[in-house]
Amino acid sequence: MADKRVQRGEATRKAILSAATNIASAEGLEGLTIGRLSQIVGMSKSGLFAHFGSKKELQLATIDWARETFLEKVIAPTEKMPEGLPRLYAMESNWIDYIQNSGFHGGCFFAAASAEFDGRPGPIRESIALLTRNWRDRIEAEAARAIELGHLHSETDPALLAFQLHAFSQEANWAYQLLGEQRAFEQARASAQELLRRLATPEGLRRTKKRRVVTARAVVQ
Amino acid sequence: MADKRVQRGEATRKAILSAATNIASAEGLEGLTIGRLSQIVGMSKSGLFAHFGSKKELQLATIDWARETFLEKVIAPTEKMPEGLPRLYAMESNWIDYIQNSGFHGGCFFAAASAEFDGRPGPIRESIALLTRNWRDRIEAEAARAIELGHLHSETDPALLAFQLHAFSQEANWAYQLLGEQRAFEQARASAQELLRRLATPEGLRRTKKRRVVTARAVVQ
Repeated sequence: MADKRVQRGEATRKAILSAATNIASAEGLEGLTIGRLSQIVGMSKSGLFAHFGSKKELQLATIDWARETFLEKVIAPTEKMPEGLPRLYAMESNWIDYIQNSGFHGGCFFAAASAEFDGRPGPIRESIALLTRNWRDRIEAEAARAIELGHLHSETDPALLAFQLHAFSQEANWAYQLLGEQRAFEQARASAQELLRRLATPEGLRRTKKRRVVTARAVVQ
Repeated sequence: MADKRVQRGEATRKAILSAATNIASAEGLEGLTIGRLSQIVGMSKSGLFAHFGSKKELQLATIDWARETFLEKVIAPTEKMPEGLPRLYAMESNWIDYIQNSGFHGGCFFAAASAEFDGRPGPIRESIALLTRNWRDRIEAEAARAIELGHLHSETDPALLAFQLHAFSQEANWAYQLLGEQRAFEQARASAQELLRRLATPEGLRRTKKRRVVTARAVVQ
């Protein structure tokens, strides 16, 4: 009985945080108040206060939930892929797929939060900066591994490559969210593919060709 | 006398709007209230109300001022450059330089406003979408002109190229504003140069080499 209650409490918390991420992606983390959330999830304010003591606590819990979701949906499936270029390619294409299909009203939560908080010092800004930097650095580390394994040409600059791959995904999010351009996702995929193909060694190309059956979309589903 | 008063009024309006753009770039257009602006420019609220009747009017005037500034600082200098690849390159590098040197506390005003309003329908969102789409389309049109003039290879996709160039500038803004990475501007320049050089015909390379003395930085100053 107690276990079931814990499970139910956990499920409620997840549902609340999913709604909170949705609100924050579109209206900003500052727009995420207990009152606004109460309207959306249909729970009383006092019920929500039982889960989150304050607006700040709610904001930090939402960031943490978005981090976990990103880890589960975008990062975890790539860990089944072989290291180097196949994994690097999966990281980029899972990410683009996730931005396209997350269902968050305002698109990428971290992109929205980055722009909202980059000019406001404090723990929220620090948290967003740390998490987004970690992901960008992870792309860079995988690019370095791909060079080490001989999948990418040795003169490749892993930091520049991470800059470019990261840029394409963020651009797709921008163009879709603001301009409603669905084609932006295809442009991001085409840009990443073209770039990686150009930097790949014959060995790198061979490795990714064999793996093409496992498309990122299939991994994500 | 009357002329001088008009000039002084115009100068005051410009100073107010410059401060408004600065606030909006860092704290968002929603954070731009007459009260907040009054603190920064040291004018009374009633004095500011004489210039802008409401918060919405102030927001729209700020967008308009940012548009004019972008036109003057980023676009106008490129019109002195020859059409095609030299102008396309100047558009990208002036833009990167401007993001780096604008002095706005929150970086690119339009990037901040895009993320703030992409999930909020209304006239502000429409205005931001229109202006940013116009700039992206202008890059695409210049890429198409560069293909027509034989400066870029004929199989170049101008929309994809505009997507990539636009992505690099926005990424630099993101990485600098959130992560404080100054190197992001160099990465954006290197990415754009590498991309354009790869797509350029021998004729295109010859055209840009001759023009290298007019660096974007010199044009912007």
